[in-house]
Amino acid sequence: MPDKFTLDEQLAADSVFVAALPLCDIRLMREQRWFWLLLVPRLGGAVEFFDLTALQQAQLGREIGFAAKKLQQAAAPCEKINIGALGNNVRQLHIHIIARQKGDAGWPGPVWGQGARQDLPPAAEQARLAALQLLPAQARAELSAGNGQAGLP
Amino acid sequence: MPDKFTLDEQLAADSVFVAALPLCDIRLMREQRWFWLLLVPRLGGAVEFFDLTALQQAQLGREIGFAAKKLQQAAAPCEKINIGALGNNVRQLHIHIIARQKGDAGWPGPVWGQGARQDLPPAAEQARLAALQLLPAQARAELSAGNGQAGLP
Repeated sequence: MPDKFTLDEQLAADSVFVAALPLCDIRLMREQRWFWLLLVPRLGGAVEFFDLTALQQAQLGREIGFAAKKLQQAAAPCEKINIGALGNNVRQLHIHIIARQKGDAGWPGPVWGQGARQDLPPAAEQARLAALQLLPAQARAELSAGNGQAGLP
Repeated sequence: MPDKFTLDEQLAADSVFVAALPLCDIRLMREQRWFWLLLVPRLGGAVEFFDLTALQQAQLGREIGFAAKKLQQAAAPCEKINIGALGNNVRQLHIHIIARQKGDAGWPGPVWGQGARQDLPPAAEQARLAALQLLPAQARAELSAGNGQAGLP
């Protein structure tokens, strides 16, 4: 995958940057109905999970676990974390990580396809960002401790 | 997680065993509309992605990539692989890996919530199992080459 990484325009419009992990950027979806993160590997041309090397797939597994745990804590009480990588509409590889509550919009079905996005007001966006407690340096340090990530971009 | 691993009854009823990877069982969903696999980590009590250790999360990332690639090849031509771990109904941790085609049921939306399961006829089940070319010994060998999986269950 020689392509330079550029964030997809739709993902850029729908979400805001939160923090950079070793492989992925964490972004917050501008969606009021659910507390919803995206993980976007900073790899040009990546579409499918297996477009990543074995090492990158392993790192992505760790970063999914890390982001999901952070979200569960930030969105507490949280009934279930939903994780998905679909890409039927936006092809750039991105992983959805969504905090679900009993009785939320679409529960217990998936969030995708539940009508138009409901914009997240600025105050709610700031509250979610604060709840995540994801300072970039801190996130990198937690994920860099002895995980054998040499060779990651 | 001291619990002994037992496959959830609903997952057992909806799918058939395909192969055992180092961490997960691969299973084929008995669903005619989509060529659909499940990955189920053989870990008692696992519900969320972060119930796994860091090493298990990394291994799960690799097994997702491996199974997704096998499915893409078996279901070719395949427009997109969809991956999801929801668990709103069945709590035991399981990862869906689904081959999607333009114009299939629900396209481009998710497969979850698209009505009742349409049973997979035995001949179609055998054809899918054959197409996967996933002999247990072979799958283990491909995933065991130098991936530092010491300590996995």
